[in-house]
Amino acid sequence: MATILTKAERQALPEILPHWTMAAGRDALVRKLVFADFSEAFGFMARVALLAEAMNHHPEWSNVYNRIEITLTTHDAGGLTGKDTGLARAIEQLLV
Amino acid sequence: MATILTKAERQALPEILPHWTMAAGRDALVRKLVFADFSEAFGFMARVALLAEAMNHHPEWSNVYNRIEITLTTHDAGGLTGKDTGLARAIEQLLV
Repeated sequence: MATILTKAERQALPEILPHWTMAAGRDALVRKLVFADFSEAFGFMARVALLAEAMNHHPEWSNVYNRIEITLTTHDAGGLTGKDTGLARAIEQLLV
Repeated sequence: MATILTKAERQALPEILPHWTMAAGRDALVRKLVFADFSEAFGFMARVALLAEAMNHHPEWSNVYNRIEITLTTHDAGGLTGKDTGLARAIEQLLV
């Protein structure tokens, strides 16, 4: 099972994942994205869905037209693990 | 522009859309769905996305693994219109 991130690993997060912030009141990472329209936003979600399924780690996310909010946490570990930072980094690679 | 549903139209909603409920504190319809897994849930979202894009009317929605919550309202009309009931009915057709 994935283990909760250490203090040192957490201190490195702002550098490794500068576009992700800590969720309010939860041990979770959040990323908000804005696209040109629904087509672009949902197209991106489809790419993230394929990543998530391949990594067997899935986001909590919402979409309103061209906006997406992604929250990552590891439910069975009760907080942030390497699964979350791994998925977040893979998502960032889609945006390069 | 789409017009807000009349009182008579609203009274007909429970019969026309029995799986949809009114959102708390908003003039919006809500539907919660549970699937077997993420693959089924996201596959369904992809089908709804195609419908929404074709109808040029898009949901507010969230997904956590096998669960989806869909909220429909017409932002530029400030509440529920025929666009929402039309999309809700089209979504129900996917589930028949």
